[in-house]
Amino acid sequence: LVLCWAGVCLGVPDPSVRDHLMQEEVFRQVGGRVLLTEPERRLSERLCELKKQEMAGPQFPPAMHFFKARPFIRRSPIFNLLQKMPKGRAALHIHAASLVDVDWLVKNVTYRPHCYVCFTQDKSVRFRFSTQQPLCQPQCSPWILLETLRRKMGNATDFDHSLVQNFTLFTSDPEAAYPSQEVVWNKFEKTFSAISGLVRHAPVFKDYLYEGLMQLYMDNVMYVELRTELPETYELDGGTHSKSWCLQTYQEVNQKFAAQHPDFLGARVIFTVHRNRSPSQVKEAVQNAISFRKQFPEVMVGFDLVGHEDTGKPLWYFKEALSLPMNMGATLPYFFHAGETDWEGTEVDGNLLDALLFNTSRIGHGFALPHHPVAKELSRKMGVPIELCPISNQVLKLVSDLRNHPAAVLMSEGHPLVVSSDDPSMFGSTGLSYDFYEAFVGIGGMKSHLGTLKELAINSLRYSSLSPQQKEEALALWQKKWDKFVCENL
Amino acid sequence: LVLCWAGVCLGVPDPSVRDHLMQEEVFRQVGGRVLLTEPERRLSERLCELKKQEMAGPQFPPAMHFFKARPFIRRSPIFNLLQKMPKGRAALHIHAASLVDVDWLVKNVTYRPHCYVCFTQDKSVRFRFSTQQPLCQPQCSPWILLETLRRKMGNATDFDHSLVQNFTLFTSDPEAAYPSQEVVWNKFEKTFSAISGLVRHAPVFKDYLYEGLMQLYMDNVMYVELRTELPETYELDGGTHSKSWCLQTYQEVNQKFAAQHPDFLGARVIFTVHRNRSPSQVKEAVQNAISFRKQFPEVMVGFDLVGHEDTGKPLWYFKEALSLPMNMGATLPYFFHAGETDWEGTEVDGNLLDALLFNTSRIGHGFALPHHPVAKELSRKMGVPIELCPISNQVLKLVSDLRNHPAAVLMSEGHPLVVSSDDPSMFGSTGLSYDFYEAFVGIGGMKSHLGTLKELAINSLRYSSLSPQQKEEALALWQKKWDKFVCENL
Ligand SMILES: [Zn+2]
Ligand SMILES: [Zn+2]
Repeated sequence: LVLCWAGVCLGVPDPSVRDHLMQEEVFRQVGGRVLLTEPERRLSERLCELKKQEMAGPQFPPAMHFFKARPFIRRSPIFNLLQKMPKGRAALHIHAASLVDVDWLVKNVTYRPHCYVCFTQDKSVRFRFSTQQPLCQPQCSPWILLETLRRKMGNATDFDHSLVQNFTLFTSDPEAAYPSQEVVWNKFEKTFSAISGLVRHAPVFKDYLYEGLMQLYMDNVMYVELRTELPETYELDGGTHSKSWCLQTYQEVNQKFAAQHPDFLGARVIFTVHRNRSPSQVKEAVQNAISFRKQFPEVMVGFDLVGHEDTGKPLWYFKEALSLPMNMGATLPYFFHAGETDWEGTEVDGNLLDALLFNTSRIGHGFALPHHPVAKELSRKMGVPIELCPISNQVLKLVSDLRNHPAAVLMSEGHPLVVSSDDPSMFGSTGLSYDFYEAFVGIGGMKSHLGTLKELAINSLRYSSLSPQQKEEALALWQKKWDKFVCENL
Repeated sequence: LVLCWAGVCLGVPDPSVRDHLMQEEVFRQVGGRVLLTEPERRLSERLCELKKQEMAGPQFPPAMHFFKARPFIRRSPIFNLLQKMPKGRAALHIHAASLVDVDWLVKNVTYRPHCYVCFTQDKSVRFRFSTQQPLCQPQCSPWILLETLRRKMGNATDFDHSLVQNFTLFTSDPEAAYPSQEVVWNKFEKTFSAISGLVRHAPVFKDYLYEGLMQLYMDNVMYVELRTELPETYELDGGTHSKSWCLQTYQEVNQKFAAQHPDFLGARVIFTVHRNRSPSQVKEAVQNAISFRKQFPEVMVGFDLVGHEDTGKPLWYFKEALSLPMNMGATLPYFFHAGETDWEGTEVDGNLLDALLFNTSRIGHGFALPHHPVAKELSRKMGVPIELCPISNQVLKLVSDLRNHPAAVLMSEGHPLVVSSDDPSMFGSTGLSYDFYEAFVGIGGMKSHLGTLKELAINSLRYSSLSPQQKEEALALWQKKWDKFVCENL
């Protein structure tokens, strides 16, 4: 009557077999095989205790929309620990254009002189720094000096608040404001257009990057890879700079920042192009990427395509352009966004497999990966990690309750992954701590522990574009800070 | 420079390797290896075309709450095909107490004579059929004849509508009505209490069951396994019947229904007990189940525990009771609800593994299964299917957008599963077609095709409690109807 399977006999469960199977599941998850020191084990227990309390509370933040959850997260003792954690972790998936807190943009940048503003027909804004009145833009009101306008409006606080609303998706009632993916993506793209004139002003560009590094540094991040199209920047007199100027600036700001913060490892660039471009435009971008990589080997690390996957062309549409480096015998690491979709089985949903076949170094999001068993195996065996950005996926309406995020499947299987924040300023999340909170408390559930956090931190260095030697140094530096953190928080 | 892995060379993808990997993924999914005849292939293509149109429309029903999606689903040509499909399929996970459309309860049952009603403090209702005024119930208004009350209220339509609201979760604004799992479960349990007095009246009990079989039959379902606690039924004079009486009634109604519908295979019973009972009460229930199975081998097929998993005791808490049959040398198939939770890593989340270790025949819901790689493997190798009830999971707030249902992972891996409707009257979904629609269009995405539907239909017979010979007959009967359906809908 007793049925046995692979040593497991069913019917009346043997408690030791049950323990063994439960242990096996614990081993498999991300961080499941990380050995913890005695102090680490104690801290881990404390974290689990805190998590239990958080689950028992009347509001469980990961089950809520982040915009509503943020005040609760800020009060969470787990979040406070995560902020202090010298995560040493690297932020591997952030778009440069939404790196810095919008408050800084409003309070610092829009108060600079020579800033003109105009209002578009679709109720957005445009900015332009210029010594003289800029030329009119189509579908836009005449330009007016922001200084003048602000004075006219009387209440600067209200006015600045209205600017903030144009610079971020963050709002108090997200369900009402963004009823569908279409609406939220529309606003998302509009917001990038709104801030474009501000951040592309050459002096602002430099300050913005410096401020961005500072905000990451304050959140205990030690290295970042930024996705950017390397925008055309401009001066007050209307003169413009090329993409190379941007890369040059990255190099300089890195040096300046590193001089003041020797424990920060710098920012590198993943050059991106929008997936709504033509195949020949993408081809040109790939060629540029190859030559930038030769010119700026220290900052320029690779290439990606950006924009809404569902409404854009699939990777395979650009196969000729993407085969170029290999056919030329050049090296161009890829970091493709792929599988950022709920539409299973569509052409776009094929991006995951194609990203892997084009030998991508990491996968941006990979939200749909658990729906693709073959791509999942390939990704695992190739050691290609998923860049998990929980808040982004929630705000852009791929998933609502983060306990249901498909990465929970990947975490339980110990799939290679790193945590990042995608567009922190758009989502009202500075640095990485908010996304770590969601991944640790929401997606990981009660199963994840300090070993999970440790593996995620180490992963972020392991899967970065740092050289093997830099990785080793970074890991040593991180280990020291980590040990200190563990001791201080027992 | 070219990296190869298991015969797959990366960098410049070989189109034939790409095709092969894509094909491999197609093969793995549910229905992926089903061979289709030429007519089936044509119908499948038509279905895929219809699905594309559905995806391109302004409203995609599986992404919406079912209560809002229902009118759109009713208009869907795919849904209409699914209704006509002689699915031959069996409904393996339905609770007897919410089998029949609430309209029938209101329009038929509450209009019968001798029906008394009272109103509880928590704004619910209770009913009792009786020749004389029933005794007062605690926390309830005095009993009043429903006939009298309805006359007093003047507008019977409005009054009946208010009754409907007490009998179902269905409502026009579910997000507002049910802000949390706690609220929705509360109303869910309240609704069962409200209809209890109606359906436990012995004559109603018989009619209810007959009507339930009729509604399934009209939806082209040919067999059902009903979960029921075998409630105490009562007569007009207050006399009551035992659980055996219920089983006897099942047998009689089956015979009566089969006489009029020879192509219907009947209803069987999975005896259930609420998980908020004590271990000794559960033990008694298990003992009862064993003896019922001997007395009524044709209707009584097994045992299960019901009620909200998150707030109830885990299976392991009842391990002594559940080991009883094996220790006694008796046979009692289990059909445990397990993993109907978003709370990963909790004690309750261990139910999945324990259900398998107790040699469960199927798993009710298994919503959390993809988070448990070891349990998932065990379930697959043991051939233990998941009973997938998409609408239930959405209404009870485990997931909102059904494209994100974790069963999408299981479907893409070809995991054994059957589709059922859990509590159709509570959710406003008659029969199985609505849940098939959600599974096929929402969870399966563009990947699922006619082969998927065929495998799901066959699965529902394969994993039923029918004897091997009955299964063979049922499959032959189903095949005939299926072929006819395919021809008629080309
Ligand atoms: Zn991104
Ligand atoms: Zn159920």
